[in-house]
Amino acid sequence: MVMNTHSNPRITLVGAGPGDPELISIKGMKAIQSADAILYDALAGKELLDYAPAHCTKLNVGKRGGCVSHQQSTINELLVHCARKYGHVVRLKGGDPFVFGRGYEEIIYTEQRGIPTTVIPGISSSISVPALEGIPLTVRGINESFWVTTATLSSGELSNDIKLAASSSATIVILMGLQKIQEIMEIFKRHGKQDVPVAVIQNGSLASQKVALGRVDTIVEEVLQQHMASPAIIVVGEVVKLHKKFESEFFIQMAMQASL
Amino acid sequence: MVMNTHSNPRITLVGAGPGDPELISIKGMKAIQSADAILYDALAGKELLDYAPAHCTKLNVGKRGGCVSHQQSTINELLVHCARKYGHVVRLKGGDPFVFGRGYEEIIYTEQRGIPTTVIPGISSSISVPALEGIPLTVRGINESFWVTTATLSSGELSNDIKLAASSSATIVILMGLQKIQEIMEIFKRHGKQDVPVAVIQNGSLASQKVALGRVDTIVEEVLQQHMASPAIIVVGEVVKLHKKFESEFFIQMAMQASL
Repeated sequence: MVMNTHSNPRITLVGAGPGDPELISIKGMKAIQSADAILYDALAGKELLDYAPAHCTKLNVGKRGGCVSHQQSTINELLVHCARKYGHVVRLKGGDPFVFGRGYEEIIYTEQRGIPTTVIPGISSSISVPALEGIPLTVRGINESFWVTTATLSSGELSNDIKLAASSSATIVILMGLQKIQEIMEIFKRHGKQDVPVAVIQNGSLASQKVALGRVDTIVEEVLQQHMASPAIIVVGEVVKLHKKFESEFFIQMAMQASL
Repeated sequence: MVMNTHSNPRITLVGAGPGDPELISIKGMKAIQSADAILYDALAGKELLDYAPAHCTKLNVGKRGGCVSHQQSTINELLVHCARKYGHVVRLKGGDPFVFGRGYEEIIYTEQRGIPTTVIPGISSSISVPALEGIPLTVRGINESFWVTTATLSSGELSNDIKLAASSSATIVILMGLQKIQEIMEIFKRHGKQDVPVAVIQNGSLASQKVALGRVDTIVEEVLQQHMASPAIIVVGEVVKLHKKFESEFFIQMAMQASL
């Protein structure tokens, strides 16, 4: 039985941003400064916990890749439990809480139990990580939209939406897709997109950020050669050509082919 | 002729976020604190200028809607001029600099003139404004992707990508589209989407934030009745049903129809 000891339980979902602890919002930082308890993700920077007051209880409820360390239902229960026990709970989530972050499910659960819950958006990796690697998602004259999806879904729907996106000018951003990159690139190939530039960016916004560049039919080999690992995002589209290294690699490749 | 007086000219493009001055990143705030000059947009919150040091020169180079008050070429030249004259220039842009923000064009221009330019991402309105209105862009079991596009191309035409997006399963976010909402909704109707929920959100993240809710075939009337104005974003997709007010309006409408 949960002891309902705190008179003012409340929850704030905070987007921690892509990883660099300075990419949290001022509002998010202030929420942490007033937290009595923090439940944080594997993807949220640990340095952010330093903003918390001394009395604050800190719990790691991280999930990473497909390895579920805490079931979503357990996290939901913990949120309610901690709010009733401690008062103001900050739920710190990597990126933005509402982009594949299951933030909505948490809000519904906690509000149905009478605990006021608010959201402070974060900088989503889907947009910021390409930017930090020098790849803008939209550029006048190149494209007019971008499409963000997750790889962990029924392949049928992925295929249909990729077909539509591939026919458009959209830059395609795929989150949590590294383990399925071969399968994903096969879908693009089936739509005649073997030459479209692709970037895979690991540890975006951190000092360890690295990138693999190629095209739909070469990126899998690049990823293997460079030992790319999760967390990583995949960017597919002509805008990838604007990456500084892409052009030089492209030219070196051309030069090598010419000398054969 | 530009006087090249400063020994260390540099430029930082900073995403100001959706409007609420506390939704800028800590890194963005620190950049402003060390700025010798700031060039800011109409959409960037004026309160952010208060972080600047006393000696900092502040220039409004805002564009809004289609009314160009400063040509992009003028902004580019001003950036270079100010960096050479003052030192550290912060280019403060509403939302994220790389989401329809022409940030890339500015970087190319300034770097080609030998001025080191870096980017600090911002919270994009495309994701955060729906979230602040209680609409998550993706929810398990409802949809698995979102597609962000702009309505107005430089040619004045409607983006062809809207037609493709309308056929997908994605939540669709349309920026700068309010003036063309009727035309856009006609596209969705032609794809049999007349019943899909739509939200139009004005002044996202500010105290004056307001929303109009409806469906593809009713939203234009709602927008007129509620006197919605730019800046506003349009969200089309089943996730809009999760908005608290949508459901009650939906039920009231059902009840009224039942009583006829």
